[in-house]
Amino acid sequence: MEDIKAVQFENGRLKLIDQRILPARFEYWYTDTEEGVFEAIRTMIVRGAPAIGGAAAYGVYFALRESGNDAQAFIGRCRHLISARPTAVNLEWSVLRMMRKAEECGYDPDTLLEEAHIIVREDEEMNRKLSEIGLQVIRRGDTILTHCNAGALATCGWGTALGVIRSAHESGLGIKVYADETRPRLQGARLTAWELKEAGIPATLIPDSAAATLIRDGKIDLIILGADRISADGDVANKLGTFALSVVAKAYGVPFYSAAPTSTIDFSMKDGKDIPIEERDADEVRMIEGVQIAPEGMPVYNPSFDVTPHENVTGIITEKGIIRPPFDKNIERIRNGENL
Amino acid sequence: MEDIKAVQFENGRLKLIDQRILPARFEYWYTDTEEGVFEAIRTMIVRGAPAIGGAAAYGVYFALRESGNDAQAFIGRCRHLISARPTAVNLEWSVLRMMRKAEECGYDPDTLLEEAHIIVREDEEMNRKLSEIGLQVIRRGDTILTHCNAGALATCGWGTALGVIRSAHESGLGIKVYADETRPRLQGARLTAWELKEAGIPATLIPDSAAATLIRDGKIDLIILGADRISADGDVANKLGTFALSVVAKAYGVPFYSAAPTSTIDFSMKDGKDIPIEERDADEVRMIEGVQIAPEGMPVYNPSFDVTPHENVTGIITEKGIIRPPFDKNIERIRNGENL
Repeated sequence: MEDIKAVQFENGRLKLIDQRILPARFEYWYTDTEEGVFEAIRTMIVRGAPAIGGAAAYGVYFALRESGNDAQAFIGRCRHLISARPTAVNLEWSVLRMMRKAEECGYDPDTLLEEAHIIVREDEEMNRKLSEIGLQVIRRGDTILTHCNAGALATCGWGTALGVIRSAHESGLGIKVYADETRPRLQGARLTAWELKEAGIPATLIPDSAAATLIRDGKIDLIILGADRISADGDVANKLGTFALSVVAKAYGVPFYSAAPTSTIDFSMKDGKDIPIEERDADEVRMIEGVQIAPEGMPVYNPSFDVTPHENVTGIITEKGIIRPPFDKNIERIRNGENL
Repeated sequence: MEDIKAVQFENGRLKLIDQRILPARFEYWYTDTEEGVFEAIRTMIVRGAPAIGGAAAYGVYFALRESGNDAQAFIGRCRHLISARPTAVNLEWSVLRMMRKAEECGYDPDTLLEEAHIIVREDEEMNRKLSEIGLQVIRRGDTILTHCNAGALATCGWGTALGVIRSAHESGLGIKVYADETRPRLQGARLTAWELKEAGIPATLIPDSAAATLIRDGKIDLIILGADRISADGDVANKLGTFALSVVAKAYGVPFYSAAPTSTIDFSMKDGKDIPIEERDADEVRMIEGVQIAPEGMPVYNPSFDVTPHENVTGIITEKGIIRPPFDKNIERIRNGENL
C-alpha cells in the first residue's frame, strides 16, 4: 500500500490510477493536455479533493504549454480546469496557486512543472503529518467508521482520514474499521475496501444505512472521514452521507472527526451554506455498471456532497493540529499561521 | 397500477411477480410446492412482509397436500416455511393461522385453500382501509419521503405506506414523493420507483444518503414507510435505513409514520430489542447484477432490517386507526379488539 500513488508525472505525462475501474482492474490512465486533465477530474478517473488538486496542478502546466504566450488563453484554460467540479476547494486552490506562480516566474514552464511537483509532495507530507497528529484521538483497540474514500487514492499520497487509520494500524493500536460503501459511486466499496485490504487492516464493508445501528449499539468508537471544503466556521462539505452520519453520531455521543490538510479550508466562505454542491448525472443512480436498476427516465436527485454543520463535528484533524470548538476562532488562528 | 397483484393463485399454482428482475422485466414465477414457496420467500422473488404472509398461506396449503395424513410431516413443512426469513412477523402469523385452520377443519385441503384466499383478500382490504385512514396525516401539496417498497408489490394488494400515498394521490391532494433507493437490494429504485411511475405520481429517486439533507432543509413534510414487525411497545423493525431516517427526522422535527396492518404487530414481543434481524449474504453488497463492486472476499455486515425505537415514531397507521403515544397502551387496546 506504501506505493499507491494516485497522481504521478512520468515522461512528460500525467499518470493517474483509473479509479473508475477499481477494484476489478488496476490500470493507469495518461494525459498530457489540459483538456485531458479536465476530463479526468470530471469523469472521476481521479477523485478525492487533494488528488484533484494535485492533478489540476499539472493541468495548469499543460495549459501553459498549450497557450504559448497568450495570457488570455492561459487564463481561459485555467478557468476551464476549475470548472471541472465545483465542490472540492482544493481544485481552485491548486489552480490559483499555480497561476500566481506562473505570473511570478514569467510563465516559465519548467518552474511551473516544479511547482506542481511541490504541490504533490507537500500534500503527501501534510497527510503524513496530520495522520500522526490524528493518533491523539485513537485509543488501543478502537473500532473506527469511515465514509467514502479519503485514502491514498484520494490524495497525492498516504491519505487523510484513511491516513490516520493507516498510521494507527502501523503504530500497533489494533484498530478495526467499518467502511461505508458510499452510494452512488461506491468509493467505499471500490476504493476504501481495496486500500484497507491491501494494507492488511481488519475491516468490514457495510451498506451506508447499516452505520446508524452500529453507532447506536456502541459498536463504533469514533468516526473519521475526509472533507472536500471546510468553511471558516468549521462546517464540513464532504461526500453525500456524511451529514446523516453526523446527526446519528451526535444523538448517540460518538466522536465525529474530519481529517483534511488546511488547504481544504476555504477561509473566504463564512459558513457551509454557501458551499456549492455538485449535482451529478441521474444515471449514477439509475444504473450500475451499465445495468438498469431503476425505471428508465425516472427523475433523480443526486447531490454528490452534503454539508455537516460544525455543531456536529468533534474536531478537524489537520497538519497544523486538531481544530476543535470554537471552530471560527481556531480556524482564524490557522489562517494567521499558528499551529494548534 | 390497480392490477399489480404480487400474490395470486391460478390453476392450482401460486403465481408471483418475480420481484428480483423488475423494473427491467415483468415476469411471473410459478410454484405448486411448499419447497417452491420457501425458495421464493428466501430468494426474494416475493418480498414485503404482507406479501410474504400471503405467499406462505399457499405454502401451507401445498404442505398439506404433500403431507397426506402425516401430521408430523405437515408440521415439519410448516416450520420449514416459517424459517425462510426471520424478521417479518407476517410469515409466522400467516403460517400459524393456516395451521390452526387446518386443525379446525380436519385437514381439509379445500378449506385450507379458501383460508389462504381469505388471508390475501383481507390483506388488501386492510391496506385499503389503512390507506384511507392515513389521509388524516397528509395535507394538500405535501412532499412525502418513503423508504424501501411498501407498495402493492410488498402486499397482497394496494400497499401500505405506498397505499397511503396512492390514496392521497387519487384524492387529488397533489402530493409529491421522494423514494430512497434502499441499498443493498434497491427495492426503492427497482420497485417503488416503478410503482410510482405506473401510478403517475410525481416522484424523485434519491440515494439513501440524500434524505438527511432534504429533511434538514425542510423539503420533506413527512415520512411514511412500512414495517416488518412491530413490538408491543411500538418499536418498528423495518428495512435497513429506517432507523437512521428516524433519527434525522426527530432531530429536525419531521413527522415519521409507519403504515402496516395490525397483523404486523407481534404482541408477544415486549420491545424491539428481541426482534430477530436477518443477516443476508455478503454478495448482496459485494456485487450488483453479477458485477463485482468490492474486493473479492471482503468481509461484509449486511443486516436486512433495523429497529426504530418508538420514541422516534410519530404514529403507526393501521386499519384500526392511527396508533400514537403512549404506544404500549394503545397497542394493548388494539389487542383487545378496539379501534383507535
